[in-house]
Amino acid sequence: MTTPFVPHLQWRYATKKFNPEQKIAQEDLDDLLESLRLSPSSLGLQPWKFVVITDPTIRKQLREHAWDQAQITDASHLIVLCVNNNIDEHYVQKLIAHTAQERHIPLESLQKLQEMILNSLTHQSAEEKEAWLIHQVYIALGVLLTVCAAKRIDACPMEGFDSSAFDTILHLREQGLHAVVLCAIGYRSGDDTYAPTVTQKVRWNKEDLFLFKN
Amino acid sequence: MTTPFVPHLQWRYATKKFNPEQKIAQEDLDDLLESLRLSPSSLGLQPWKFVVITDPTIRKQLREHAWDQAQITDASHLIVLCVNNNIDEHYVQKLIAHTAQERHIPLESLQKLQEMILNSLTHQSAEEKEAWLIHQVYIALGVLLTVCAAKRIDACPMEGFDSSAFDTILHLREQGLHAVVLCAIGYRSGDDTYAPTVTQKVRWNKEDLFLFKN
Repeated sequence: MTTPFVPHLQWRYATKKFNPEQKIAQEDLDDLLESLRLSPSSLGLQPWKFVVITDPTIRKQLREHAWDQAQITDASHLIVLCVNNNIDEHYVQKLIAHTAQERHIPLESLQKLQEMILNSLTHQSAEEKEAWLIHQVYIALGVLLTVCAAKRIDACPMEGFDSSAFDTILHLREQGLHAVVLCAIGYRSGDDTYAPTVTQKVRWNKEDLFLFKN
Repeated sequence: MTTPFVPHLQWRYATKKFNPEQKIAQEDLDDLLESLRLSPSSLGLQPWKFVVITDPTIRKQLREHAWDQAQITDASHLIVLCVNNNIDEHYVQKLIAHTAQERHIPLESLQKLQEMILNSLTHQSAEEKEAWLIHQVYIALGVLLTVCAAKRIDACPMEGFDSSAFDTILHLREQGLHAVVLCAIGYRSGDDTYAPTVTQKVRWNKEDLFLFKN
């Protein structure tokens, strides 16, 4: 048997109170961001960008549009996970060219892959495509939360914010980006009275969550 | 600095060819399923169920509705990640009662939490709610893929399938469930000619994926 992963996930909880003094070391941050970069996505499209914010002025401004949640300003870093809505023919061509270059293979050898990707894009309505791209961003969120747990870095995923205000403050719209979900990362405050109750995780029992077909 | 997580994610790839003879040990499977059970979700709602399939007859049938992809039948286990659409007042009451019981606290102490959850549910249109619940399922997928990588268990996430046919074959609809995404898990075949190219991961460069606001 391999090393159990479950203790990592038992340790984590949606941290409400961060220690504002304790910052994530650069090497750990690099490991988290590289994990985000390596996140799986459908067709390897990576339809995302990640805004990593420490600037106190911007965070204060963002907090006003996120139910005044203290995690926005107090965590070591705030990550805004954005969907990249520029996933069109031009984007796919750029991605394929990048792939050929990285793998040192001729562009022609990726012709079929390119056609397949473009084909799958054109078979979707604008709404279907938008929803599908956002799904990929949530995979990246799942990766980030899991890697944080394994590294004993606290995290708080947040959906309660005004994404339109975030888009404006961070100038996302003009880049074809849209703020989907937030993740504050850092270290829990020693006096987070909320922690002891929530770290005692409540989940549905196994028999209520899994259906086995053997 | 904590142990780098990146090597785990560098190791993984969307495995196209599994070794049908190599099964996941029960202890490892238990660790994966428990990780799924512990996956984070908005408000702790856990709006999901997971169908875990080894039965060859069912998998053969499902494969016909998933572009004949061999991973469906050849991986050690097939997991169908489903959204639970029964997230209504009754569900929330049950969840709150379960929470009170697990934490040995009076039901009344969770009154405000219950109101907050119900309030957030009623402020959504049916379409918004459905999309939001599906997002949570993708978080669980991100967790599963990351934990698999850390355990050196191969995985292949799959969106290319007829979810309506899956709902029918697995009798999901009558339980208020809907197949969202698949994940085949097991061990890569030694002769997966696809592996060497794709394990050499291609991602956008860091400077193209991250925006720093310091």
